[in-house]
Amino acid sequence: MSANGVTLVSSNRCFGGRQEVYSHDSEQLKCKMLFSIYIPPKAVDGVKVPVLYWLSGLTCTEQNFIIKSGFQRYASDEGIVVVAPDTSPRGLNIEGEDTDYDFGTGAGFYVDSTQDKWKDNYRMYSYVTKELPLIIEQNFAVISGCQSITGHSMGGHGALICALKNPGLYRSVSAFAPIANPSKGKWGQKCFKGYLGDNPKDWEEWDSTLLVDKYNGPPLNLLIDQGSTDPYLADDLMGKNFVESCAGAKVPVIYRLQEGYDHSFFFVSTFIGQHIAHHAKALYDSIA
Amino acid sequence: MSANGVTLVSSNRCFGGRQEVYSHDSEQLKCKMLFSIYIPPKAVDGVKVPVLYWLSGLTCTEQNFIIKSGFQRYASDEGIVVVAPDTSPRGLNIEGEDTDYDFGTGAGFYVDSTQDKWKDNYRMYSYVTKELPLIIEQNFAVISGCQSITGHSMGGHGALICALKNPGLYRSVSAFAPIANPSKGKWGQKCFKGYLGDNPKDWEEWDSTLLVDKYNGPPLNLLIDQGSTDPYLADDLMGKNFVESCAGAKVPVIYRLQEGYDHSFFFVSTFIGQHIAHHAKALYDSIA
Repeated sequence: MSANGVTLVSSNRCFGGRQEVYSHDSEQLKCKMLFSIYIPPKAVDGVKVPVLYWLSGLTCTEQNFIIKSGFQRYASDEGIVVVAPDTSPRGLNIEGEDTDYDFGTGAGFYVDSTQDKWKDNYRMYSYVTKELPLIIEQNFAVISGCQSITGHSMGGHGALICALKNPGLYRSVSAFAPIANPSKGKWGQKCFKGYLGDNPKDWEEWDSTLLVDKYNGPPLNLLIDQGSTDPYLADDLMGKNFVESCAGAKVPVIYRLQEGYDHSFFFVSTFIGQHIAHHAKALYDSIA
Repeated sequence: MSANGVTLVSSNRCFGGRQEVYSHDSEQLKCKMLFSIYIPPKAVDGVKVPVLYWLSGLTCTEQNFIIKSGFQRYASDEGIVVVAPDTSPRGLNIEGEDTDYDFGTGAGFYVDSTQDKWKDNYRMYSYVTKELPLIIEQNFAVISGCQSITGHSMGGHGALICALKNPGLYRSVSAFAPIANPSKGKWGQKCFKGYLGDNPKDWEEWDSTLLVDKYNGPPLNLLIDQGSTDPYLADDLMGKNFVESCAGAKVPVIYRLQEGYDHSFFFVSTFIGQHIAHHAKALYDSIA
């Protein structure tokens, strides 16, 4: 362990910057966690830059996004740091943590659990919104407080709730194929029951379609891309519900149904450049 | 199996085109083989375009390049089909085929074996230069004979020998960190001994550094990128030997030692756009 609490796991030069992975002991999750961080050329040279957080989907680790999305090219050009945490605590030996792909390990759902078995460790919401940003600001060349958030599927929803629950914390938010109304779909219901209990009333503060209804804060700069042939769209993602909720609450959102795209990283890779540009503009405009 | 001999395994929309994988029964290798093919938007619409072949390195399948390199963006923009075969025959139950990562399965080395155990199946050279191009021309919207070749590590060397042994067959050739003088390094020696026998004399027609010495044909349009901190550079890749051989034979080569880059796909992804542009120019110039 290094003096400041993070340990370098790997470092590769990429598009003139560095793609790195670090480990650290998480206070929120009470286990060792890995996160990836892309440091663009100007931050390698010590210039402080804004940060974009990426939240991955079910089964992912800190690796999937950095291997499969090709985002580094755009982050290098735009001059932003991009941080991608793992999707849950790991290796806790909680009974049932490794039984299913869509609950427990790899499926933290970016909530703070209230249920006995999980509540001491499954606190991905607090990890992502509080602990991790502090660690990044303490250890890397970033501008304090100048951050945005995005993600895919479970992580797309994670990005939405992190922004909706913390007005002003992020300069912009975007999502790829988010599980937009988890109280209504099988993935969301399974995780909400497990982490938050059986009462749907207790899920409301963690469902973006319900949260947007009561949002009261600065503009969210909200962009969502959704593939039109995504097999999970109708029953699990339900972006339409979120958009209707935005309309009712008069919260502006750019929702793009991308013709013929599915749920894969081939979809994400196609539009990640536009998302990076969206965030870079909001981030740099905010400090101009 | 479809009427024309290839069966669709997967298809994903990506940068307006399609990233697909097909299987077929190979005559050269006498087993089922998979290959990936990226079809750019204009070829999806039926316009015939040039083809670039990508050869992967040790342990890879037809998947690694399409997941990790981010090449689709550039192939979409430039309007070229990109085909990536697997790196060896598979599942033959030849004794020893799965013992090592650097021989047998995943390590065909793009030669035609002469040794009893392997010679009936390990014919990746003939597969890549003869059988596969025919299959592509019969089944996809490509311009007959308008092709180039590139690859990484073992596949970088594969690209070099395919071009050097077939003057005029490719419009351009490039390589990322090729195993450039395999007769002299441990990876090359192991595969050459296994597939070609113990006599180094029999390796000469498969070693790019020796082949370039006697090359006699049209310009190769030869580009090589090599990371300066690649851990395999000194003992296994030896690009310097190839460049010296090119100088002696007066064969022009652009050899770029890229400061601080290693052997990973983070290196490949950084420069794949420039390689795609290099090939697209040679390919489209040749039909202008």
